[in-house]
Amino acid sequence: MKFVRYSLDNQVFQGVLEKDLITQISGDLFTIWNKTNVIYQLNEVKLLAPVLPKQIIGIGANYVAIEGERPIEPVQHPVFFFKPVSSVIGPTDNIVIPKQVEQVKFEAELAVVIGKEIKNLQAGDDVAPYIFGYTVANDVTAPDLFHSDGHWTIGKAFDTCTPLGPVIETDLDWRNVRIVASVDGVRKQDSPTEFMIVSIPEMIIYLSQVMTLNPGDVLLTGSPVGAEMVGPGSAVDCSIKKVGTLHNKVIS
Amino acid sequence: MKFVRYSLDNQVFQGVLEKDLITQISGDLFTIWNKTNVIYQLNEVKLLAPVLPKQIIGIGANYVAIEGERPIEPVQHPVFFFKPVSSVIGPTDNIVIPKQVEQVKFEAELAVVIGKEIKNLQAGDDVAPYIFGYTVANDVTAPDLFHSDGHWTIGKAFDTCTPLGPVIETDLDWRNVRIVASVDGVRKQDSPTEFMIVSIPEMIIYLSQVMTLNPGDVLLTGSPVGAEMVGPGSAVDCSIKKVGTLHNKVIS
Repeated sequence: MKFVRYSLDNQVFQGVLEKDLITQISGDLFTIWNKTNVIYQLNEVKLLAPVLPKQIIGIGANYVAIEGERPIEPVQHPVFFFKPVSSVIGPTDNIVIPKQVEQVKFEAELAVVIGKEIKNLQAGDDVAPYIFGYTVANDVTAPDLFHSDGHWTIGKAFDTCTPLGPVIETDLDWRNVRIVASVDGVRKQDSPTEFMIVSIPEMIIYLSQVMTLNPGDVLLTGSPVGAEMVGPGSAVDCSIKKVGTLHNKVIS
Repeated sequence: MKFVRYSLDNQVFQGVLEKDLITQISGDLFTIWNKTNVIYQLNEVKLLAPVLPKQIIGIGANYVAIEGERPIEPVQHPVFFFKPVSSVIGPTDNIVIPKQVEQVKFEAELAVVIGKEIKNLQAGDDVAPYIFGYTVANDVTAPDLFHSDGHWTIGKAFDTCTPLGPVIETDLDWRNVRIVASVDGVRKQDSPTEFMIVSIPEMIIYLSQVMTLNPGDVLLTGSPVGAEMVGPGSAVDCSIKKVGTLHNKVIS
């Protein structure tokens, strides 16, 4: 099932997308929701980020270029980072380069939307019941704003640096999709998610042993090789089959 | 004025504290609220964190021990970090040491509660209209969970690592208070906020040039010298006059 968030006449709604028709829903995505009788054509509304995350947690350096490069030892301590919820934009909004820098880096990623409270899972536990669905993220980054001591916070915090969408797909086999990104129509990233180093279950279990994950938390699961710097005037497309495409222009 | 959040019979309320009386309020702290006719004695309720932050942003290494140590050049790039909102606990809740480590570090801090959207302020702008009030924070940290590449995320993310409270004080001259912390009754931190390196206005202006701050965002403004590791069985008190004291036991 595909969930969307959209605006119409300055109001924000949630809906279920089937083919090109959106059926408006009422209630809470993570507890109880119901279809209403209100139906729109997809092209009548403006799609927004399909969820307003409660928090956004990313993982760094999580893809190999080819299967043979995979580290022999499992990663003991993955690099995690938070992005502020204020950085989220919709699937067609503009990425605004912060005025302190010239260019930013796009990073297409598969994003996991948590659907149930998760705490203290153990290795081997099934994480599937806790995952509400999947969406596409562009973890836009300003490496020039990284702190020399290694902190990424400010370089991943600026407004508009987290495009999300276009839908949350609840029926997706995350092990069996490709992440594709292009800049101005030229393909830059194209990788199966099987090149992930720390898998989605490993990531969720690791985090759950430190902090409670809650419905509406969004995990960014890392970006394949091929991410590049882009400047004003470019447009970045990030796609995952069944979820769709983020198409965000970069402006200054 | 002193705002509190509290629970009573498993429900959560907000109120205004005057002497030992809490007058329950309705509405939204940052827009419109009204006093109700419901009044409690302070000792009838359990105080919670006085705000559920929308996001928590901290600054690292922001105090000198004595005025003479202040860096001659202003700090160009402060270290900022995010803490997850899931880490917040109330003024008397227990700090639970994550099972991966033996001890954690307490860090008493003055916390700023943002009251209005802030975006792109310029040096010299007055930040006072954007500040709703102040509270005490304990930025509990597990340095053993810091990543060797310099990322603090996981070491500042565990559940219970951000005690906040007991009140939000709206009338406070932040330049004129002391931050005091003790462990099991022994004073460990005692510093005027004038030993801050990056001031609160500088911090807010810097952040506002990167990201939008919103009502309910909480800034942790750094901890004075004297923070130490503590283990299970200890109790940490963090105090600021007019705001009150956090009293949190450390358990494993």
